[in-house]
Amino acid sequence: MVQVVDVPSMASWIASAGAEARIAGIADYIESDFTNWKSFDKVPRLAAHSRDGVIELMPASDGELYGFKYVNGHPVNPSRGLQTVVAFGMLSDVATGYPLLISEMTLLTALRTAATSALAARYLARADATRMALIGCGSQSEFQALGFRALLGINALTLWDTDPAALIKAEANLTRLGFEVRIAIDAADAVAEADIVTTCTADKTLATILLDEHVRPGMHINAIGGDCPGKTELDPHILQRARIVVEFEPQTRIEGEIQHLPAEQSVTELWHIIRAEAPGRVSDEEITVFDSVGFAIEDFAALRYVRDTLAAAEAGELDLLAAPADPKDLYSLVAASVSTPA
Amino acid sequence: MVQVVDVPSMASWIASAGAEARIAGIADYIESDFTNWKSFDKVPRLAAHSRDGVIELMPASDGELYGFKYVNGHPVNPSRGLQTVVAFGMLSDVATGYPLLISEMTLLTALRTAATSALAARYLARADATRMALIGCGSQSEFQALGFRALLGINALTLWDTDPAALIKAEANLTRLGFEVRIAIDAADAVAEADIVTTCTADKTLATILLDEHVRPGMHINAIGGDCPGKTELDPHILQRARIVVEFEPQTRIEGEIQHLPAEQSVTELWHIIRAEAPGRVSDEEITVFDSVGFAIEDFAALRYVRDTLAAAEAGELDLLAAPADPKDLYSLVAASVSTPA
Repeated sequence: MVQVVDVPSMASWIASAGAEARIAGIADYIESDFTNWKSFDKVPRLAAHSRDGVIELMPASDGELYGFKYVNGHPVNPSRGLQTVVAFGMLSDVATGYPLLISEMTLLTALRTAATSALAARYLARADATRMALIGCGSQSEFQALGFRALLGINALTLWDTDPAALIKAEANLTRLGFEVRIAIDAADAVAEADIVTTCTADKTLATILLDEHVRPGMHINAIGGDCPGKTELDPHILQRARIVVEFEPQTRIEGEIQHLPAEQSVTELWHIIRAEAPGRVSDEEITVFDSVGFAIEDFAALRYVRDTLAAAEAGELDLLAAPADPKDLYSLVAASVSTPA
Repeated sequence: MVQVVDVPSMASWIASAGAEARIAGIADYIESDFTNWKSFDKVPRLAAHSRDGVIELMPASDGELYGFKYVNGHPVNPSRGLQTVVAFGMLSDVATGYPLLISEMTLLTALRTAATSALAARYLARADATRMALIGCGSQSEFQALGFRALLGINALTLWDTDPAALIKAEANLTRLGFEVRIAIDAADAVAEADIVTTCTADKTLATILLDEHVRPGMHINAIGGDCPGKTELDPHILQRARIVVEFEPQTRIEGEIQHLPAEQSVTELWHIIRAEAPGRVSDEEITVFDSVGFAIEDFAALRYVRDTLAAAEAGELDLLAAPADPKDLYSLVAASVSTPA
C-alpha cells in the first residue's frame, strides 16, 4: 500500500499546526537538504512546453529516498476557473524502487515556495527589514507573507496587482491574519517604502514588473514569478547592479531572470551561502536578488517533512503495488480475476 | 477529481476482456501512436541509478494528452519477495495541465511490453513461425506468450530459466492457458526448434543469455531483458549478422543491446517499418533482432487505451486537485481548515 495525501488531508495537516509553522518546518528541511547539496542527484527539470503552458517533472534523490513532482504552469487557467499551478508528487525507497507516499502538491508547492523565499531572505535581506511589497496577489501571495513573518518577523505589507479582485482578496486574507496591510496604487508606489520586494506574478506577457528606477540600495528582491524561458519580471538593468543568488544554476540559466544575462556574469547558488562557503548580504547598501525558479530538492524536502510529521490517520492509502504471492508470478493476479465475472 | 486505477481495478479491467484481448488492444494503440511518431515530444527516459537498481521517469506527449510513467528496475527484488519492476503513471490534459488519470502500471507495463514485442514481431518474424523459445520465466513471460498468440498465432513454446521454480510456475500457467509447452534443459536446447526467441531475463550479472552459435538463419530474436547500461543479453556477434530494429534510437544506444556497437552501425526505428518507410523482414534467411528497452510512447498508448475502455465503475477517484472557489484564493482552502480542530 502507498500512503496517499489528498487535498483535504493536506489542508488538515497544514491546519493542524498552522500554515506559518508548516512553512517554517519545511524551511528547516530545505536548509538541511541544501546543506547536503553534494549528496543529491541533480538534474534540471524536464519541461514539455505547449501553447498555453508547461508541464514539468522534477526528480531528486539523496540516495536513500527518491522523489519527484509533476507540476504545470498555465497562466491562462484562472480565467477558466482553474489554478495556474497544480501539482502532485511522490517519495519512493531507493533500495527497492517501491513508492512510499503520493501527495497532492498544489498546496504543498505554495508552502515550499514561501519557505524557500523566506529561507533565502534570511541570508540576503537586511536584518532591520520591516516592510515587504507583494507584487502579484494570486495564489502564492498569502503563503509568501506567512513565510516572511515566520522566518524574518515581517508584519507590514504593501500589496499590488493589476487585478483589483486579487488585491481585495489578498488584503482581506492578510488583514485577518494580523498583518498591517496597505494597498498601493501602482508598482512604483508598492516598493516606495519596502525593504523587501516579492514579485510573484504569473502572466507571460508582462515581462517587466519591476523597473530599475524603483530599486533602492539595500533592497532585497525575491523574484519568484519568472520561471520559464520568455517569462521574467525584472528590468535587466536591476541585475547589472545586484548580487544574484539562485537555486541550481544550470536550471536558472534557462528559466530565471538571468536568462537575459551573458553566461560569464557570475551568480551564487544558495546552498553555498547556507554552508557559509559564500557570504550572504555583505553591506547595508547591497542590492540582492533571489532569482528563484523552484528546484526539485525543495519539493523533496517538503515531501520528507510531510512524511515525517503526518499523523497516520491523516493519510489514506492506495493499492498501487502489485504483490503476487510468488514475486515471479505476476500473471497470477490476472489469472485469479479471470474466474470473477466482469 | 482524478480517476484512479489501482491494482484490483486494473486486474478486473484486464480480466473483463481477457489478457490476450487487452494486449491486442494495446498493440493497436501503440501501432497508431507509432504511426504518429513525428507529432510526439520525445526524450530518452530520465534514469536515477543506485547500487541495487534504477528508477526512471518516462514522459511523452502528443500535444493533446501528456503522460508519464514512474518505473523501477531492481533485479534483486524477487529475493526479497518484491517485484523486479513496479510502475505507476498518469495522463493529463495538455491544454490545462490538469491530471486526468492515475494508474497502477506494474500489470499494465507487463501488457504493453508484450504488445510491443508482438507488434514488432508481426513485421519481423517469418510468417510461418510456429514455435517461440522463452528464455526467462519471470513476471513478463506469460504476457509475452499471450501477446505472440494474439498477434501471430504462436501456440508452441519452449521454456528455459536458471530458476527451476520459475520454470515450473510458467509451465503451469501456460499449459492452463492452452499452450503446447516444452521445458528445455538449457538455453541451447530452448532455441533448437524455435522460430522466435524471446529473452526476458532480469539479472545484471548474466550478460550473455544467447550465444551466436544458437542463432540460425531466419530467426527473429525479441530481446527485452537488456535495458540498462551494463545489462544486456545477447552475444555481440549476433548483432553483427542481424538486422537490428529499435524503438527510439537515442535511448537504445544508451540502454539496449546496441550499447556494445559502434555508433556508425545503423539500426532501424520500428515506427519507420510501421509507416512502410522501411522494410520489415526482407527474406526467409534474414536474422532479425528487436532490441527493445521500452519507450514512453508505449506507456502513453497503453494509458490512452485504458482511459478509452475503462468502465466508469472500474475506476476510483482521488481528490488531488485543489479547487478553491476563487482560483486566485488557494489560501482559502487552508483558512477554512484552520477552524477545524485537528
